[in-house]
Amino acid sequence: MPRPPASERPEIDVLRVGHRAGRDPRLSTHLALTARAFGAGTMWLHPPDPSIARSLEAVRTRWGGTFSVEGCEDWRSLVRQFEGPSVHLTMYGEPLEEVAGALSREKRLLVVVGGAKVPSELFGLARWNVGVGAQPHSEVAALAVLLHALRGPPEAGGWPGAKQVVLPSARGKRVRMVR
Amino acid sequence: MPRPPASERPEIDVLRVGHRAGRDPRLSTHLALTARAFGAGTMWLHPPDPSIARSLEAVRTRWGGTFSVEGCEDWRSLVRQFEGPSVHLTMYGEPLEEVAGALSREKRLLVVVGGAKVPSELFGLARWNVGVGAQPHSEVAALAVLLHALRGPPEAGGWPGAKQVVLPSARGKRVRMVR
Repeated sequence: MPRPPASERPEIDVLRVGHRAGRDPRLSTHLALTARAFGAGTMWLHPPDPSIARSLEAVRTRWGGTFSVEGCEDWRSLVRQFEGPSVHLTMYGEPLEEVAGALSREKRLLVVVGGAKVPSELFGLARWNVGVGAQPHSEVAALAVLLHALRGPPEAGGWPGAKQVVLPSARGKRVRMVR
Repeated sequence: MPRPPASERPEIDVLRVGHRAGRDPRLSTHLALTARAFGAGTMWLHPPDPSIARSLEAVRTRWGGTFSVEGCEDWRSLVRQFEGPSVHLTMYGEPLEEVAGALSREKRLLVVVGGAKVPSELFGLARWNVGVGAQPHSEVAALAVLLHALRGPPEAGGWPGAKQVVLPSARGKRVRMVR
């Protein structure tokens, strides 16, 4: 699982459609953390939820990088106007193994992840409908496997601006504080 | 990402330690669904939570296979007595890329996933401490990438006993009902 060279890795943003602020805070937070760790630039959250944006800001302050969560009022416009094709993650879609090659040749991608009730128009709006398997599982799992396939594992070492860096270890927690 | 032949895929069970019934129902459900989809046999849930076991039973009735969630009162005994080594998933562990080869040569593995407060003795009890990257993200994401690396994508087609099967499609939902 080598990390592909930067020139061969598409830049990826994520759009989460149909977040429910009362019900999904932890799932949407896990989705955002996964997007960040596996190299996405931005996660657009529809409808906006400032509490999730704030908790990812706190992660960025501590662990570095430039990832952010942005509120999205109109997800259809975002899909239409994004500077690259969109990939809708769904268990009903084409197998990832069959389209990963084509996806990895794109410069920019918008990966669209639905909530509990996915509007069926998403199937028509997206350039690709892609399944990570055809069994019910988790949008967090599907996003992780897709990003890992296209961009490799999370970048090792300290990220720019990090206050702390993990020193990977076979035994116990080792963390280096920066400065 | 071809699926390795069965003889080269370790059999894997998952142990979730520190589930909080009031707070984590959806995350533990996503974790169980991910374990099932990517080929684990059983997810042991500590402490037991029959509501999650029941919802995975409903998934099995509809989508087939033999996966189940079992309650676990004493996770330390399970780790010690399991018929294979244990792999603790943690952002502080050795990079997955460095140990995936050794893990895939095992016949059986117990993958241990901590909740919010991971007892530090887990680091000592587990045979391996493995990180999917060294950034904070999600136990669901980490489990998915680990299982995908060791067992390949979810098995395609209908699973034994399924009442319905997805017919992967570039456009829209196609499902075949069995009998």
